[in-house]
Amino acid sequence: MKPTAGSTAEEVLAVALRKLALRPGDIFADIGCGSGRVSLAASPLVREVYAIDRRPEAVEYAREQARAAGAGNIRFLEGEAPGVLEGIPGPDRAFIGGSRNLSAVIRALAARGAARMAVSCVRIETLGEAVTTMKELGTFREALLLQVARSRDLAGGTMFVPGNPVYLVIGGAEPCS
Amino acid sequence: MKPTAGSTAEEVLAVALRKLALRPGDIFADIGCGSGRVSLAASPLVREVYAIDRRPEAVEYAREQARAAGAGNIRFLEGEAPGVLEGIPGPDRAFIGGSRNLSAVIRALAARGAARMAVSCVRIETLGEAVTTMKELGTFREALLLQVARSRDLAGGTMFVPGNPVYLVIGGAEPCS
Amino acid sequence: MKPTAGSTAEEVLAVALRKLALRPGDIFADIGCGSGRVSLAASPLVREVYAIDRRPEAVEYAREQARAAGAGNIRFLEGEAPGVLEGIPGPDRAFIGGSRNLSAVIRALAARGAARMAVSCVRIETLGEAVTTMKELGTFREALLLQVARSRDLAGGTMFVPGNPVYLVIGGAEPCS
Amino acid sequence: MKPTAGSTAEEVLAVALRKLALRPGDIFADIGCGSGRVSLAASPLVREVYAIDRRPEAVEYAREQARAAGAGNIRFLEGEAPGVLEGIPGPDRAFIGGSRNLSAVIRALAARGAARMAVSCVRIETLGEAVTTMKELGTFREALLLQVARSRDLAGGTMFVPGNPVYLVIGGAEPCS
Repeated sequence: MKPTAGSTAEEVLAVALRKLALRPGDIFADIGCGSGRVSLAASPLVREVYAIDRRPEAVEYAREQARAAGAGNIRFLEGEAPGVLEGIPGPDRAFIGGSRNLSAVIRALAARGAARMAVSCVRIETLGEAVTTMKELGTFREALLLQVARSRDLAGGTMFVPGNPVYLVIGGAEPCS
Repeated sequence: MKPTAGSTAEEVLAVALRKLALRPGDIFADIGCGSGRVSLAASPLVREVYAIDRRPEAVEYAREQARAAGAGNIRFLEGEAPGVLEGIPGPDRAFIGGSRNLSAVIRALAARGAARMAVSCVRIETLGEAVTTMKELGTFREALLLQVARSRDLAGGTMFVPGNPVYLVIGGAEPCS
Repeated sequence: MKPTAGSTAEEVLAVALRKLALRPGDIFADIGCGSGRVSLAASPLVREVYAIDRRPEAVEYAREQARAAGAGNIRFLEGEAPGVLEGIPGPDRAFIGGSRNLSAVIRALAARGAARMAVSCVRIETLGEAVTTMKELGTFREALLLQVARSRDLAGGTMFVPGNPVYLVIGGAEPCS
Repeated sequence: MKPTAGSTAEEVLAVALRKLALRPGDIFADIGCGSGRVSLAASPLVREVYAIDRRPEAVEYAREQARAAGAGNIRFLEGEAPGVLEGIPGPDRAFIGGSRNLSAVIRALAARGAARMAVSCVRIETLGEAVTTMKELGTFREALLLQVARSRDLAGGTMFVPGNPVYLVIGGAEPCS
């Protein structure tokens, strides 16, 4: 069953992946992987993906999606970050889709030398925590407010229906281009 | 019963009324009045309001709202603009919340010397029609894209839930300040 | 001379004033009045306006604007809130355009029984502070993210040029309708 | 010299490329290539890129960028679409960054069997033309309104500075997933 929370909108995903500047040799961590959409999209772009979620049903759902798509380089971990990170190498890059233990997760990723990380959030408190933590670590790069509205037919015309405003906070040792 | 379409968001209403620059002596027309929200808000600011809608149930609902609020200077007309405008004086200012016969309505208001009109719309075709018609008449002032997102509690934090993007097209003989 | 910071965009002003639900008998405080735009707009809607700014040049500029407009019910105070509030009655409603001493200002207004206050800000830290303080006081009503883009001619067509996203935080003893 | 118009914002580029669903065997056309940013980003994802612009200085600048980046599968064409398309195979996918001859360009791409095309525009007239033409051809997929605001430090805090609202119109024979 698809987990009730945790599906990143396609457009946010596209921007986050570009900001992460994934490289073929990278180890990539998808922290709070939810339905696995980010892991699947990153899979062909990197060496290895670690898809992490503390909810067994999310891990199970994401694993099935990966199997169906034939994505062989994704490893699934049920557990809570940052603790679960101790069992994996790197990572070089990380996407953080959940807000749990956010400061600790950012600190752990920085300590492990992640070149780039992207936090996706909708709550301003999470945004504030991500920005503050990265600034304290000296690895804050930029924050974005992304808004995507999608066309819908209305009485023969075209209106736009907005998705929720999403914040992306980008940090890491590597400067943005 | 409240009509299913036609309730202008409070924030759009606030901006539209300010752009209309209503004056105490004005005759104001609310074309496609729907639930009557715009008429009620304009009522204390002008001499007389004409609330117009082609749907009997909208007129009835709006009339009840006006009665409950004690707004004595609103007259209700069931009918279709621009034809129905022939039966009223002026108007000096108008809010147009519907897209029916839009070009003809804008032309009729211009011909009757309306100092300022505001068209509220969500469809890009309506936006295009309003801008084009006003430009042809030489009375286009400005168009705005308004987006309002409202806070909602999410897991103890604050996220923003967006309303639909709304376009306001402002025209009329009187220049904007 | 017009102060370099502190002019509230017309559309934000329109929404803020509507959210403040000003009444003819109200005493209204405009804290961080800058160019005086909010005070001038509120002037005809309330009994008395107190326009407060700690910058002498802002107070001087706003005073001239009020004189030119014939707004006789605005009193100007040079000083810093919340201290300066001790010298004025009420207020019933307040607009806060600056972030200086924000928590203390909100607390002082609440202690004095302000029925409604609106904080306008562009920084997420100020947004967070306003929301948190009002929630602690139990007087948080809603926060809005307002975005206004304005039409501009481009090569014979119409594009929209965005203004900065602005947050409005609404609080006070009186519930929003 | 970098051409004065025609640089697609990084985030819009990221979304457009994802919507185009580029595949390794594709021939991709970048129509109105400007600085060549889209061509360069697409280069590693497809078999061959045709970067087209009617401005010699744009073609020259983009060619230098490609050389510096070592992108060997981009061919540059100076000329005006749709005419210039007659000299190239396919294409399977196309990005259209300019509004010149837009209807004719969309029709030519459709006639040549393009599986997916993305039109990026800021003017509502161009948006309307793209949507209408694709609907007439029965190949309209979706339109998006994209807004990206970027963080900037302000007095020790974080504000967001918005980029222009951009419309992406997606069409083609292939349905969106």
